[in-house]
Amino acid sequence: MLTRKELTDALIAHGFWLPSNVPGVWGRTERFEVILEGFDSIVSDIARKAGAERVSFPPVIEREVIRNTGYMESFPELCGSIHSYREERGSHPDLIRQVEAGNDWTEFLEPMPVTLCPAACYPLYPTLSGSLPESGREIDLTSYVFRAEPSDDPARLQSFRMHENVRIGKPDAVKRWRDDWVERARDLLLSLGLETDLAVAADPFFGRGGKLLAANQIAEKLKIEISVPITSAEELTAVASFNYHGDKFGTTYGIALPDGDPAHTACIGFGLERVTLALIATHGTDVRIWPAQVREQLSL
Amino acid sequence: MLTRKELTDALIAHGFWLPSNVPGVWGRTERFEVILEGFDSIVSDIARKAGAERVSFPPVIEREVIRNTGYMESFPELCGSIHSYREERGSHPDLIRQVEAGNDWTEFLEPMPVTLCPAACYPLYPTLSGSLPESGREIDLTSYVFRAEPSDDPARLQSFRMHENVRIGKPDAVKRWRDDWVERARDLLLSLGLETDLAVAADPFFGRGGKLLAANQIAEKLKIEISVPITSAEELTAVASFNYHGDKFGTTYGIALPDGDPAHTACIGFGLERVTLALIATHGTDVRIWPAQVREQLSL
Repeated sequence: MLTRKELTDALIAHGFWLPSNVPGVWGRTERFEVILEGFDSIVSDIARKAGAERVSFPPVIEREVIRNTGYMESFPELCGSIHSYREERGSHPDLIRQVEAGNDWTEFLEPMPVTLCPAACYPLYPTLSGSLPESGREIDLTSYVFRAEPSDDPARLQSFRMHENVRIGKPDAVKRWRDDWVERARDLLLSLGLETDLAVAADPFFGRGGKLLAANQIAEKLKIEISVPITSAEELTAVASFNYHGDKFGTTYGIALPDGDPAHTACIGFGLERVTLALIATHGTDVRIWPAQVREQLSL
Repeated sequence: MLTRKELTDALIAHGFWLPSNVPGVWGRTERFEVILEGFDSIVSDIARKAGAERVSFPPVIEREVIRNTGYMESFPELCGSIHSYREERGSHPDLIRQVEAGNDWTEFLEPMPVTLCPAACYPLYPTLSGSLPESGREIDLTSYVFRAEPSDDPARLQSFRMHENVRIGKPDAVKRWRDDWVERARDLLLSLGLETDLAVAADPFFGRGGKLLAANQIAEKLKIEISVPITSAEELTAVASFNYHGDKFGTTYGIALPDGDPAHTACIGFGLERVTLALIATHGTDVRIWPAQVREQLSL
């Protein structure tokens, strides 16, 4: 198994990635994208057959959603707040002098009413306000998401695509849907030759208060993750997660069951770049000699 | 022709867009995406047949590129600088109090080494450093780009997809390629039933200094735009632009011709959401009754 540095170098040398000077921000070549798109299509096909509606959101989100959902309580260091120059903050020539000198030019910027989107499903919930049909809803979406966590791990990107499916409805139906997806996803990843490890998990909640949130999440089995080897056979990397939110979003955004109770929600998500990296790390950099059934499934 | 407000309302009522509380930030439904993807594929096919390499970049870019390219001189009010919480800026409980009170929480944030990407081709140029092959290169790419310009015009989005082709090589070849694309794009848009208007144009450079830059751009015919009616038959909306950069990027990033001279570059770009809106504004909200040859070209 290649180390972080070796895998990063191999991705560039074999023409999968284009380098940049910022950790976790890379260009993708067609050679990388065809693998990623092959996997993305498999998930889309499953969703379509299940009758999911497909929607699409830009990589930015209303700032208010970050407040409503408590994001800054839980993941403050990952947020991407967006700021732009406004003349009231200082003169344009003064701004230019700071930029050209390579100094901090933050004082000239004003926070915009948007931030980067932290997870593909966040912009969806506010659009669901109102009363649900009897059988609830199921949504399929892929978006670029942002996490401000520079790292030398090629599998820890700052900007990456997350393919999610979201189920909104009655508690039992939503929980069963989440659990069914865990099995389906494990079978899918196994069929692609990946060694999968399934575990109850917790989000990387911030600080001391975060320890309690993580312990609660594990005790209630709210989050399940599938991890695979990418740059280490011991320290695995999560490539898929399966989350039950209870009525958190139903209550926050007034999404109601036909009887008026708040709807429950669950989301399942694949990190598309991570799945692609796992496939390259497992099967090698020469896609032509990957196992036939893997190539076939990915339409390579 | 529907007004801005009427078109926006129609897009939501007919299930093309999902509303949000931020101007210029909308969700897209499958009904909208199939049109957009149909047009995107036509441009990809043209690029593939021309032998262009396909690459893909995330919606964020190295902050340094914004300085190198003089972006803050020309378009300071459109930039999207990215900031995140770092503990040195203040305690987490203090941050949470500001967020929960709905106050400005900027003082707790630190600028990250990335900004939002302002045009699809910006992240490409730094990756081209070095010596070009004799015939130069041609690149095809689609990205989400950001402009901090809230507007009630549904065709002026803050976050939208731009499909670009980029040519890097000798001055004459690059200029000819740009001019050929103008004709090809006009024919394509006409074949889709859009009334096109072709004009030499200028970028929306900022401030008094910007007037000189714009005058120079027009005098040298560096930018050509194709505009179409979307929300007004008189005030047209640009849907495609064709730009010759001279050796600006070649010099900035050390992209060299085989003889050592700096390479020249040109880019052509389609605003994918704008083309989609023009098609809906022209042919109506019921895609089933669009002209047969338009539906066929878009694979609808």
